[in-house]
Amino acid sequence: MTSDDVREAAARIGPYVRTTPVLDTELDGRPLSLKLENLQVTGSFKFRGALNGVLVRGAGAGGQVVAASGGNHGLGVATAARLLNLSATIYLPATTPEAKARRIAAQGARVVRHGEDYAGAEAAARAWADRSGGSYLHAYDDPAVIAGQGTIGLEIARQAPWCDSVAVSVGGGGLAAGLSVSLGPDRPVVAAEPERCNSLHAAFSAGGPVDAPVDSAAASALGAARIGRHPFALLSSGNVQLALVTEREITQARDRLWEELRLAVEPAAAVPFAAWLAGRVPGRHPCLVLCGANTDWLPQ
Amino acid sequence: MTSDDVREAAARIGPYVRTTPVLDTELDGRPLSLKLENLQVTGSFKFRGALNGVLVRGAGAGGQVVAASGGNHGLGVATAARLLNLSATIYLPATTPEAKARRIAAQGARVVRHGEDYAGAEAAARAWADRSGGSYLHAYDDPAVIAGQGTIGLEIARQAPWCDSVAVSVGGGGLAAGLSVSLGPDRPVVAAEPERCNSLHAAFSAGGPVDAPVDSAAASALGAARIGRHPFALLSSGNVQLALVTEREITQARDRLWEELRLAVEPAAAVPFAAWLAGRVPGRHPCLVLCGANTDWLPQ
Repeated sequence: MTSDDVREAAARIGPYVRTTPVLDTELDGRPLSLKLENLQVTGSFKFRGALNGVLVRGAGAGGQVVAASGGNHGLGVATAARLLNLSATIYLPATTPEAKARRIAAQGARVVRHGEDYAGAEAAARAWADRSGGSYLHAYDDPAVIAGQGTIGLEIARQAPWCDSVAVSVGGGGLAAGLSVSLGPDRPVVAAEPERCNSLHAAFSAGGPVDAPVDSAAASALGAARIGRHPFALLSSGNVQLALVTEREITQARDRLWEELRLAVEPAAAVPFAAWLAGRVPGRHPCLVLCGANTDWLPQ
Repeated sequence: MTSDDVREAAARIGPYVRTTPVLDTELDGRPLSLKLENLQVTGSFKFRGALNGVLVRGAGAGGQVVAASGGNHGLGVATAARLLNLSATIYLPATTPEAKARRIAAQGARVVRHGEDYAGAEAAARAWADRSGGSYLHAYDDPAVIAGQGTIGLEIARQAPWCDSVAVSVGGGGLAAGLSVSLGPDRPVVAAEPERCNSLHAAFSAGGPVDAPVDSAAASALGAARIGRHPFALLSSGNVQLALVTEREITQARDRLWEELRLAVEPAAAVPFAAWLAGRVPGRHPCLVLCGANTDWLPQ
């Protein structure tokens, strides 16, 4: 997977995705840019990779695509299927908020609740794809999906060329890997994870993908127990730095995004901001990717 | 008040305000740009005019500025005062949501609740300014305030040059008037108002500012009973078109901004979007100004 794949993905998905805006601001006297992927179609960056994946891989028997998801990838696949006149079956674990399940069903997809976590939903989804002949689209361990997420990096390079690092939250690693490819070696990708949901940290410690704990308010979006094989390979050879945040830091960061910036996001999207607030994001002027806004949480 | 005043205001307030991003998208197959002033410092465009007003008019006795406000102007003045090391006294009517009152107090301002509506709070605020020697800053009927709001138009012209009309909601008329000056005659300003809170429509019908009903979910932001004298003069000679929306249209528009765009805004900010959804905003590709996000309403 190379930057050419990302550029091709950008051309492929361009007619359907929003070029999300970047907000440049200053907080606590420090400059900061925010890439507002929470304003992406479906309310999450996942739509980019899902759409590119469906366009590249095509549908299976009966024009059917199948996916397992904490929610946002499923919504991306369901929305892509609707736009392309395909049918989608989406498997969701018990951890997926009802707000996300409702949105997926509203796109016309068949929603199946299965398993306690992402791994359980994934096994059932793969089995169904095998039985039905549907095309299974992995949420992150697929170069076409990673290339789609990487298109965010092309936009950041154009919209915020002054940013000298880009911080993102990490679940299965598709977004971080895609950005690492599209940003190249000059701008580090800061991979931020909850302490209790840290598949990439665990993989770097172990020297390869291993199962890690999944226990965080951000689990519905970042709940992959194990970093993807493709993302890990790309991140291992990229300019990547790691940052960990606590649950309390995530909640405070999410609240502050609403209080001071009027951005209502889901917990996963607050993870890079939490790392930045704690001084764990290198760079004089970082860009943080706010990855999604599909939340049951209500700003007050 | 001319476009020179707006350019000077932009230079004056530049170090403190955010250049808010523009979101370009398509809804129902129609192109649309949204100027996200809901992401402005204080959560509302009013900060621009308040800051320019305080900088131009200066403080009165004891470094004190005084304002009456439905909430957002007060928050703008309070924030400007804090940044400039001045003290602020803000009068709020009963219609102002508690969320706004809390934010104003958090800026260190003295908050006084007075009157059932904006007019009542205004009379008390003026009386206090006279007694105390503080500098009274009107929320909209002041060329310095109008010039500050007009800076939004300079940004739209740069960020979204393809937009052939700009729609805004109207309360006292400061924002619409400032945009009318900064956008010039080529791009119409579409002044959108709730049917039950329509000071500009009433003024155009009567040939001058007159009292109009104030009875809308958007009243805390748009609750001026009478369009300002300065705004009316500027709007009368500008390229201005009018649009009315119902309460139901406002609520539906606000919900849709959250459901489809993940933008949590206050009812007043949904008024131009309501007009656009109803087909009452001319232009092939309009820009709508989302004016604020200081709401007690919680997205669900």
